[in-house]
Amino acid sequence: VKLLTLARDLRRRKSREKNQLFVAEGVRAVEELLRSRLPIRGALTAPQLMEAPRGAALASTLRDRGVAVEDIAAAEFGSAAETESPQGVIAIAEVPERSFAEIGSDWTGIVLVLDAVQDPGNVGTILRTAAALGAVATVALPGTVDLWNAKVVRSGMGAHFTHLAFSTTWNELDAFRANAGMRLFAADAGGEDIATAKPAARSALVVGNEGAGLSSDARSRADRVVALPLADGVESLNVAVATGILLHSLRS
Amino acid sequence: VKLLTLARDLRRRKSREKNQLFVAEGVRAVEELLRSRLPIRGALTAPQLMEAPRGAALASTLRDRGVAVEDIAAAEFGSAAETESPQGVIAIAEVPERSFAEIGSDWTGIVLVLDAVQDPGNVGTILRTAAALGAVATVALPGTVDLWNAKVVRSGMGAHFTHLAFSTTWNELDAFRANAGMRLFAADAGGEDIATAKPAARSALVVGNEGAGLSSDARSRADRVVALPLADGVESLNVAVATGILLHSLRS
Repeated sequence: VKLLTLARDLRRRKSREKNQLFVAEGVRAVEELLRSRLPIRGALTAPQLMEAPRGAALASTLRDRGVAVEDIAAAEFGSAAETESPQGVIAIAEVPERSFAEIGSDWTGIVLVLDAVQDPGNVGTILRTAAALGAVATVALPGTVDLWNAKVVRSGMGAHFTHLAFSTTWNELDAFRANAGMRLFAADAGGEDIATAKPAARSALVVGNEGAGLSSDARSRADRVVALPLADGVESLNVAVATGILLHSLRS
Repeated sequence: VKLLTLARDLRRRKSREKNQLFVAEGVRAVEELLRSRLPIRGALTAPQLMEAPRGAALASTLRDRGVAVEDIAAAEFGSAAETESPQGVIAIAEVPERSFAEIGSDWTGIVLVLDAVQDPGNVGTILRTAAALGAVATVALPGTVDLWNAKVVRSGMGAHFTHLAFSTTWNELDAFRANAGMRLFAADAGGEDIATAKPAARSALVVGNEGAGLSSDARSRADRVVALPLADGVESLNVAVATGILLHSLRS
């Protein structure tokens, strides 16, 4: 029951950070994990996996790949699962070591910066979007939900395993930016229309908290504060949708 | 307890369609409802509303506006609520009568068409996005989740109450289109880059099911099948994010 204890423990951010491990839950997330190169520490399965679509195939793949699998009762499984109707599969894998160094010096494109974005579903969808639209990296500043939170991983639909996503600080970001000569765009309802923003070879796009919006840290650093013009009487867009539109606009 | 029985009954689509009523749950949704002109049939409140942010103010506003309010016990309230941690307020309001006729004959812009989009959260976010980006209307074809489902309403963040959103059929849409001379764009991963799509004064944008994609009904009618170019190895974007980017691209 060692894997079960570990999986339960990894529901806490502190434990994920200490162990540098995370949990991928559900058929799709574990399939994507197997497709990536991240080392898998082990997996837990429960009987209902055999009834899930592609579940039986996934169970064989896990064994074929030599992953340590513990098959446990549904009730025990439920104590580690974070979904309401668990599909019966959880994998524990290593959080990849990533930093700005991996971007290298020869790049063009957009680095997405999450400044206290808090909803796990939003952050997962944002990572999926950044990966799909070819962002160079996505970095999370303090105050942002842990990128390796199980719900973020699930909403990311596999983006975590291939897209260069990692936590950072303003200090690290400032140092990277000074070196890379990156133009910093910050999203805020009061900003100028993104359509008028001059694209740069290297850009950073900062998106802020769902409720509070852009932080003063981001505002004071921005070369340009940009917005999507919204219809009268509409306050805001969902942060993942807004991020998608802004990324696409800055790219083209 | 009549309102409570009605609220419970309105969890079923059939009941919403028969009664032409829907339920708005939670402080924010009811606030937005009060700001709109939709007639409110009544409201249910539970003790926890007094502890929710802006809850006490909302309770007074309901009474000041002459809405019939029944204050019930938390357990009873829970039997009608559809959220996991109910904030203690539900309002029952009339589904507005809407059709293509309300678009009139003097318009330009984009009509968004949902063709079997099934996730309530996605559809709510899409309505919020369509309203924010100034789409002329959003119409839902059969197979799409009911626009007046409580979760769709909640995710819509008030968009339902002001944005021209309604259910339709291909027959009605075909008739409107023939009359309006609307160019039909359909979104599909295999389509041409949206950046190369010629904007039209009047457009329809069709988005399809999260898993199955574009229906043959949509494909056979499309003037142009459009896509967002995605990075290698990435299968798809979230449908709400994709819709936001496509709407924004077609608009500009």
